[in-house]
Amino acid sequence: MIIQKSANPRISNFDLENFSFGNTFIDHMFICEYEDGKWGEPKIMPYGPIGFSPAMMGVNYGQACFEGMKAYKDENDDVFLFRPEKNFSRINKSTSRLAMPEIPKDIFMEGLKTLIDLDRDWIPKGEGMSLYIRPVIFATEEVLKARISNKYMFAIVATPAKSYYAEPVSVKISDHYSRAANGGVGFAKAAGNYAASFYPTKLANEEGFEQVIWTDDIAHEYFEESGTMNVFVRINDTIYTPKTSDKILDGVTRDSFIKLAEKRGIEVVIGDVRVKDVVEAFDNGTLKEVWGVGTAVVTSVFKSLGYQDRLLTLPVLSDEESFALSLKKDLTDIQTNKAEDPFGWRFKVERKILEKA
Amino acid sequence: MIIQKSANPRISNFDLENFSFGNTFIDHMFICEYEDGKWGEPKIMPYGPIGFSPAMMGVNYGQACFEGMKAYKDENDDVFLFRPEKNFSRINKSTSRLAMPEIPKDIFMEGLKTLIDLDRDWIPKGEGMSLYIRPVIFATEEVLKARISNKYMFAIVATPAKSYYAEPVSVKISDHYSRAANGGVGFAKAAGNYAASFYPTKLANEEGFEQVIWTDDIAHEYFEESGTMNVFVRINDTIYTPKTSDKILDGVTRDSFIKLAEKRGIEVVIGDVRVKDVVEAFDNGTLKEVWGVGTAVVTSVFKSLGYQDRLLTLPVLSDEESFALSLKKDLTDIQTNKAEDPFGWRFKVERKILEKA
Repeated sequence: MIIQKSANPRISNFDLENFSFGNTFIDHMFICEYEDGKWGEPKIMPYGPIGFSPAMMGVNYGQACFEGMKAYKDENDDVFLFRPEKNFSRINKSTSRLAMPEIPKDIFMEGLKTLIDLDRDWIPKGEGMSLYIRPVIFATEEVLKARISNKYMFAIVATPAKSYYAEPVSVKISDHYSRAANGGVGFAKAAGNYAASFYPTKLANEEGFEQVIWTDDIAHEYFEESGTMNVFVRINDTIYTPKTSDKILDGVTRDSFIKLAEKRGIEVVIGDVRVKDVVEAFDNGTLKEVWGVGTAVVTSVFKSLGYQDRLLTLPVLSDEESFALSLKKDLTDIQTNKAEDPFGWRFKVERKILEKA
Repeated sequence: MIIQKSANPRISNFDLENFSFGNTFIDHMFICEYEDGKWGEPKIMPYGPIGFSPAMMGVNYGQACFEGMKAYKDENDDVFLFRPEKNFSRINKSTSRLAMPEIPKDIFMEGLKTLIDLDRDWIPKGEGMSLYIRPVIFATEEVLKARISNKYMFAIVATPAKSYYAEPVSVKISDHYSRAANGGVGFAKAAGNYAASFYPTKLANEEGFEQVIWTDDIAHEYFEESGTMNVFVRINDTIYTPKTSDKILDGVTRDSFIKLAEKRGIEVVIGDVRVKDVVEAFDNGTLKEVWGVGTAVVTSVFKSLGYQDRLLTLPVLSDEESFALSLKKDLTDIQTNKAEDPFGWRFKVERKILEKA
């Protein structure tokens, strides 16, 4: 791996206590290019622009997908990733469906570890703090033919993060728009899935909702996802979540919540979640909680659901009563090395670059 | 408009008689950037790379869509566009669904006319020859938040083109994969729609088919599109094509074929095209032709349809017997100024730049 360190690191001018999420990038980025059927030399270099023309296939034909993951710093300044192998295996499920080349494990993992180690000073510490990491691959060939690209760039960029969506939000159960087709790419973290969701979300925002609960495109009878997250429903003391399919993302946080719930002895039912059953549970007083989970926000608690002309206002639970918040705490305590890790989910990022310096 | 002419034009080294489509670009490109809620100064500049980081939202969240159009040169070296206002209005249908800003008409049309006028020497002449023009807009803000971008680039690039898919092709009627969801973005020329189609097309290629006829994602009972084209079916002497919807592109070539067929007195039925009816027509000998239409290829004639375990081999018709080829000739004769244009479809690109030089 080529490591080209920044001559003008920006870290000393960055306030780790007070920043906005997503638009300040760590000093370096990782890139590796694919051409002529093979991956080239991996490289860490200063974060910044690379030259692409508007004929780049990635923006013309949308061969582009990504992962979202986080690094956490504990009290001793040790740095941990969370289940990075899940992200590695999933990005190749996405690339496969988008007819893009498989990313080799060593390129993904070594790039990730080396970049995070090098820029570990950028990782903020404390409640809800983390470094948000974005592996992304996109087609870079410049040709105006609607066909599979012959060139790609795999990159990893990262930005300091604090928790957002702190307040419970109001969500709209979609009765017209949808995010995924049967036999489509809904399960992949395909770039196009996100763009497709923005306009319906904007319309929901205008009606006073923060997010959309996506439902099936056939008759809007079943929950699929919420916003860019997997969705959980609690009726009495049982948790329900849709089973993964070609329409539903196999979320790392989703999987972790299921395992943590089972560890607590909570019954989890993975299968169809019918809108009708959720509304019926609301009407008979057994609907306790509905929430979304994902890497970026961990948990987004819903205070109300918009369904057709109704607004279903959910009960307000204490942190202890709430399964959503209890499981969130279980998860973040493991992520930030405040609790035992019986699942072996934490992945320590060793200090290698700095030792050599 | 800023016009920055190339100091090193490549046109003199380009062989207009012998070239491959799609990867050689004319000397200039048009760009206009959107930021802070407004469009900036339009600019024509030498074709080439622009700096974007891998955090560019266009490749992360897929806000990107395009148009495909052509310029033709007649015997007198006059240059014509074909129904450019249709492309203008459609790109804004796409931007609207993808929550991107509307492109103003003067930016689109002036950019287009000025660029094509300036690089008119790049337009090849003769049978099937044209300049393929790609207006494209994509999100350029560099931020890792799954939300609507605040910055965009609208660009026009172009490449000399000759007709491809000259030979009749074999296509597979999809019985598993689909390209569009109800309430989704199938009608838009969204970048992500193309990426989603590549893998199913690759699988079809491996089975010996050149393209996929896309069917509805619910039960694969209805034709939607074929490859990246609209699809037409001829049973006896009646033409059938699916009606446009939120899943089906409102193709300029599709619309032109419908109008040209009506002008010839051919009956055109716009509505549901059921797979079952097409197969039944094949079995009773009334299925005469199936073909795709689109700007890039104009017409792609199908020689056979793969349906489940069957291969339906279509009759071989002469150019005169074939509605597909007769209508193709009607269309290209208008496009290339070989025939009267009763519809007012041709749009002459005036010589302005060269006169000043």
